[in-house]
Amino acid sequence: MKDDEKQDPLHETVGVNPDSTLFEDLESGILRVTSVGASVEGSIGRLLSAWRHALIGRPIATAQELNQRLSKVQALPILASDNMSSSAYATEQIVRVLAIAGAGALSLTLPITFALVGVLAIVVLSYSQITRAYPAGGGSYAAARENLGVVPGLVAAASVLVDYVLTVAVSVAAGVEALTSVAPQLFGYRVVLAILIITVLVIGNLRGVRESGTLFSAPTYIYVLSLLGLLAYGLYRFMSGTLPTFVPPPGWTPEVTTSLSFLLILRAFSSGAVALTGVEAVADGIRVLKPPETRNANIILFWMAGLFGMLFLGVSFLASHVGLVPDPTEQETLISQLARLLVGGGWFHLLIQVATALILFLAANTAFVGFPRLSSILARDRFFPNQFLLLGDRLALSTGIITVGILAGLFVVMFGGSVAALIPLYTIGVFVAFTLSQAGMVRHWRRVKGKGWHVRMLLNGLGMVVTGFVALEAVTVKFSHGAWIVFILIPLIVLLMLAIRRHYVHLAHELRLRRLPSLERVTQPHMVFVPVEDLNRPVIDALAYALRLSTEVRAVHVTYDVASAERLRKRWEEWTKDIVLIVIEAPYRHWTSALLSYLDSVSKQNPNVLLTVVIPEFIPRHWWEHLLHSQGAMRLKLALLSRQNVVVVDVPYRLKM
Amino acid sequence: MKDDEKQDPLHETVGVNPDSTLFEDLESGILRVTSVGASVEGSIGRLLSAWRHALIGRPIATAQELNQRLSKVQALPILASDNMSSSAYATEQIVRVLAIAGAGALSLTLPITFALVGVLAIVVLSYSQITRAYPAGGGSYAAARENLGVVPGLVAAASVLVDYVLTVAVSVAAGVEALTSVAPQLFGYRVVLAILIITVLVIGNLRGVRESGTLFSAPTYIYVLSLLGLLAYGLYRFMSGTLPTFVPPPGWTPEVTTSLSFLLILRAFSSGAVALTGVEAVADGIRVLKPPETRNANIILFWMAGLFGMLFLGVSFLASHVGLVPDPTEQETLISQLARLLVGGGWFHLLIQVATALILFLAANTAFVGFPRLSSILARDRFFPNQFLLLGDRLALSTGIITVGILAGLFVVMFGGSVAALIPLYTIGVFVAFTLSQAGMVRHWRRVKGKGWHVRMLLNGLGMVVTGFVALEAVTVKFSHGAWIVFILIPLIVLLMLAIRRHYVHLAHELRLRRLPSLERVTQPHMVFVPVEDLNRPVIDALAYALRLSTEVRAVHVTYDVASAERLRKRWEEWTKDIVLIVIEAPYRHWTSALLSYLDSVSKQNPNVLLTVVIPEFIPRHWWEHLLHSQGAMRLKLALLSRQNVVVVDVPYRLKM
Repeated sequence: MKDDEKQDPLHETVGVNPDSTLFEDLESGILRVTSVGASVEGSIGRLLSAWRHALIGRPIATAQELNQRLSKVQALPILASDNMSSSAYATEQIVRVLAIAGAGALSLTLPITFALVGVLAIVVLSYSQITRAYPAGGGSYAAARENLGVVPGLVAAASVLVDYVLTVAVSVAAGVEALTSVAPQLFGYRVVLAILIITVLVIGNLRGVRESGTLFSAPTYIYVLSLLGLLAYGLYRFMSGTLPTFVPPPGWTPEVTTSLSFLLILRAFSSGAVALTGVEAVADGIRVLKPPETRNANIILFWMAGLFGMLFLGVSFLASHVGLVPDPTEQETLISQLARLLVGGGWFHLLIQVATALILFLAANTAFVGFPRLSSILARDRFFPNQFLLLGDRLALSTGIITVGILAGLFVVMFGGSVAALIPLYTIGVFVAFTLSQAGMVRHWRRVKGKGWHVRMLLNGLGMVVTGFVALEAVTVKFSHGAWIVFILIPLIVLLMLAIRRHYVHLAHELRLRRLPSLERVTQPHMVFVPVEDLNRPVIDALAYALRLSTEVRAVHVTYDVASAERLRKRWEEWTKDIVLIVIEAPYRHWTSALLSYLDSVSKQNPNVLLTVVIPEFIPRHWWEHLLHSQGAMRLKLALLSRQNVVVVDVPYRLKM
Repeated sequence: MKDDEKQDPLHETVGVNPDSTLFEDLESGILRVTSVGASVEGSIGRLLSAWRHALIGRPIATAQELNQRLSKVQALPILASDNMSSSAYATEQIVRVLAIAGAGALSLTLPITFALVGVLAIVVLSYSQITRAYPAGGGSYAAARENLGVVPGLVAAASVLVDYVLTVAVSVAAGVEALTSVAPQLFGYRVVLAILIITVLVIGNLRGVRESGTLFSAPTYIYVLSLLGLLAYGLYRFMSGTLPTFVPPPGWTPEVTTSLSFLLILRAFSSGAVALTGVEAVADGIRVLKPPETRNANIILFWMAGLFGMLFLGVSFLASHVGLVPDPTEQETLISQLARLLVGGGWFHLLIQVATALILFLAANTAFVGFPRLSSILARDRFFPNQFLLLGDRLALSTGIITVGILAGLFVVMFGGSVAALIPLYTIGVFVAFTLSQAGMVRHWRRVKGKGWHVRMLLNGLGMVVTGFVALEAVTVKFSHGAWIVFILIPLIVLLMLAIRRHYVHLAHELRLRRLPSLERVTQPHMVFVPVEDLNRPVIDALAYALRLSTEVRAVHVTYDVASAERLRKRWEEWTKDIVLIVIEAPYRHWTSALLSYLDSVSKQNPNVLLTVVIPEFIPRHWWEHLLHSQGAMRLKLALLSRQNVVVVDVPYRLKM
């Protein structure tokens, strides 16, 4: 029966010289797909790739990866905008807490700012150690996992991931809030607007980090330069003794509700600790930088901290010296008050306002770099699905980018686009991760020792205590306002990551072959079934293919209507005696169940027989014509995937019309 | 190589005695699936069917179909609620138009009502002819198609389908409006509420017409009985000369804006023509009735028309005689005014109010019978996709039920759940269909002749003129308010139906075999390809299966990383020389494109060689574990469907863990 291949001089007739437009034939015997070959698709793939190209551009070859990396000047605005943006509100956060103890307490603003900049310096220094120790990226996850163990590492990772998602949700919601305060008629559409902006960020980042960098970097530089200009002008006025004094409008005298206590100072300190957010992103995003990556990352870290420190200290210094009192109605920000006092309400004031609004918006973009990079590191370590490692058409980590977009969108929808509702969830994750990474570094110095390790350990210990305190403070204050959600999410994510790793480890173990078997002739008996709807062309093709596989072929006809089945059987018996036709009546109209039941019966009685189901499938020419058929073949194939020892053969019959 | 089956005594070793719990073995050699066998599923199917059973109940055997049919008492509320519900507002529609010509014009209410009931009688009579001529159902589609041609038939069908969808949208939106006028805090959720109610109606109808009938019939009978009671009491008061007179509150005197003209009377007439809606549903739903279906349908038609006529005439009669003037603020309906005047504001007034609200709601349910029935008739005639013919677990026409639900939901969402916005689209379709069916009947009598055909033709001609006039009037008044949408939809649907039929006719032509070929041995040369990711268990299984098929087997490894490919090749060469390993580098990371390009090269050079791709696929035990893998096998299978002459073999490897 099956000896036709013997007579057939197949080796001579079948020659394969891959088409030179689709392949380059490399000397080593490897075929390399050309860009033309890479765009060969199925009919559905063609449709999808046309859309993909229109949205995110033409594919880039893997070898171009290094060319897509960012210089320091390009990377700074992407990796630092989250951190820099906090200079727009950090001073105000401190001032607002102190103000409840009276105007006199405001003199503590500058010392607290100095203390925070000091902590930032410790954190940045230890992150520069982390980037050196883990040049592949991973930040606090890498530091905690290496020095404290897997679970602390995963807690740090989960905390950072949650915070990345919240960074996007909060930043975009805040940006939309700024927009709707100018155009109140858009208020009803704030969720839709936020989703739209997240979509733009997703598409921008799918186009590649290079393009999104170019797209989104200008606002960061404009913000930094205009604010630095304002501060320089203020300093000049201070030096020349012409610094104006802020006169609070009547009724603005802050209501003294409490006396100045150590606790209040601590609270002001932890409110200002938003200054520390965004440091993690540099350590995670290290691989988007041109080599030498670690050196460049550290230069960016120091530039970021330096610029941020200047802005933060400058604003706090001037605000203290002009005697600013925060607007009790919260209609004007402290930065705006300061600018108006120094330069009046003209174009420069407007520039600062617009730049501030834009940088708050773009803080989200940092998370679109950080989340996918950290996810890919977790995927490399098997804690995240494989897909997070795949590079998209533009070498971006598409899965991570789309995931952070979708999750942030969900948060925005669930919280109705309200910044006030989202804020309590925010920044907790980052401080949990900081504490863990500082603790990891303390352990690191104890183990590694080296020059001056006592001082380094002491500094990281101080960092751990301070960031741990901020984390604790944030939790106690915000827990009942929604922060509990984060405390449910983090352990869930950790458990999920452990389950994912368990799956992959088991899988690798189960698939691995210790000894490669020899490819002998297979003698397992073989039975072939062909589901038959009618005697038509696709069915004949499938039966012919089935007869290639085995002499034991059975056609199975499932019917809802016995009369029509009898007609088919009569026609069948006139046609052939070679293949038996089994007729099954399905009174409950479950076509696949009837076939599965039959196959189950067969395999139960013949456990060592290999079963093959040959499915005749006709394929319409246009995808929409699939809608006109009930996809029985597709459903059967899906159902058969769950059966032991059943091979599925799809004999397609393509329609010409 | 492939002669193993020859030696193997397969016919003896493979015995199949279908499991008796899964099958009954019928004497004629047909296996019948038992209810246990019908619930055998794949892993995903099991998940879905658990949900399906919870929502809509256990499957019912096809043979039970007759037992699921409805008696006349059960069917009347389902098929007639759409029509009956219009008695709640038809009189008011007339009165409101007449009132703009002054209180004196209101004396025309009763004559216009009589005229409308007369037209209804003509329509009902001709529908009783239609049900007799087309006992399978189809109403105006069948009448117009048979007597006027395919396109008029499809225009009638499309018109009726659009109107069914709008009946659901308008009725549900009106029900929600009634609800939110009692509970205004729900107003913001009206779209969500409407979707929820549509979902309940969909699920109720998927549970089967019998269950939805039981569920939804009480309100219709309560409405009819309570309103008849009110009218009887009013009539008694009239007879006894104690009928009260309505005294309009100050400021209610209708503002006379126009004089009574023939045009105004016509407009009042066409406003009241809502009385004719819902007749179509009986003709479409004929197959939900117990036999004799036609006789029962006609009895229901006459009962419906009789009851409706009594209610309509009664309300108009009493409203005229007590001198009711419609509430200019539109806060109270005419029925409520009448009830309050006759019996006061007590419990009976409340009962009538609640019953009226409920029947407006349930008018939607009629469309959930009519739409799927008409769709199934269109599917039988090949104008609608096959799936509309399939009976669900509970013998309901699931596809039609879900489709009308989704479409009505879309209309509700698009129009923001506003009744006022939806109303202009409504009833146009029904009068277009009436006009066509009446025209069809005129043609019918001219052709068939028979006893008294002149009179019958004249009556149908009168019906055609009247319903045509109403259709024209509705269009001119409502066109710019949204009715144009209907005039875009109807031709689009007609074109779609013609395209669908064309597809099916071509398909049948292409698949049909005039002469059944003999099943000879196939000698076409055969080449087999196995995509290989690594040398692991699934790949070995696939290679072994491939060697069963042909001696010409090639393994194809697509790589994004040349170094790892070289390692694989080295291992391969140490292992076997029997199967060549082709290595393809994909610099653009398009795995399927690389394979397709290679297969395209092969088939271009060897057009008469049959290509088979044997895909090793490992199947996780739990469906969610699929999320951890990138579904390369699935995507490859989808892409290969578009290739000529390529058979796809899926060799599954099921994980044990």
